[in-house]
Amino acid sequence: MVVELDFAKAVDGLLPAIVQDATDGDVLMLAYINQESWQKTLETGKAHYWSRSRNKLWLKGESSGHVQMVQEIFVDCDSDTVVFKVEQLGGAACHKGYKSCFFRRVNGKNLEVMGEPVFDPAKIYG
Amino acid sequence: MVVELDFAKAVDGLLPAIVQDATDGDVLMLAYINQESWQKTLETGKAHYWSRSRNKLWLKGESSGHVQMVQEIFVDCDSDTVVFKVEQLGGAACHKGYKSCFFRRVNGKNLEVMGEPVFDPAKIYG
Repeated sequence: MVVELDFAKAVDGLLPAIVQDATDGDVLMLAYINQESWQKTLETGKAHYWSRSRNKLWLKGESSGHVQMVQEIFVDCDSDTVVFKVEQLGGAACHKGYKSCFFRRVNGKNLEVMGEPVFDPAKIYG
Repeated sequence: MVVELDFAKAVDGLLPAIVQDATDGDVLMLAYINQESWQKTLETGKAHYWSRSRNKLWLKGESSGHVQMVQEIFVDCDSDTVVFKVEQLGGAACHKGYKSCFFRRVNGKNLEVMGEPVFDPAKIYG
């Protein structure tokens, strides 16, 4: 038995998981979970998602080593969205090498890149 | 012209917007935007969403007065998710009266309510 989420609500059985840095509160990324990845996350303490592009269970960091250690989980009022507060190993959640996937800020009609990459994606993903 | 998001990526034309307290970084809620709500948000500086339950454009706070004044907007690496950093008027984003919709924390097999409601929903929504 695990805490029940309302997976039936999502047409595709996937619910959004907001991933937040447990230390400074930065929003790192958004990913999707199904029942299997939800259970795996609760069992292992490592964030598991459902990869929509690869259509398979995804242990975040399985190729890069940048696993997310889940410190706390919050569930919203409708039980259809969660927040994972994590320790991000490797210091970056984004596959482009930035700490957060949200590294671009709206500035008028443009997007402004904030900060610098933590790692070089070409070196990590080959 | 506004910053372009990849609305074509979502089957239903809706992209998730993570709403974060601009002051303390708390994640307040997650809602969905379509092109119209995105443009309205950029034009007015007030968070607009697409209400999936009512199937209409939704100015957050239109009935409660608890409008979200958008301070900053971040766009993710895939241009299919945004973060709105907001000043939440009325101090609470959740229709249940809590500051954040994520007021329940996973504690083993249970959900533990964190904190107290800021307002009484019965008084606000009648």
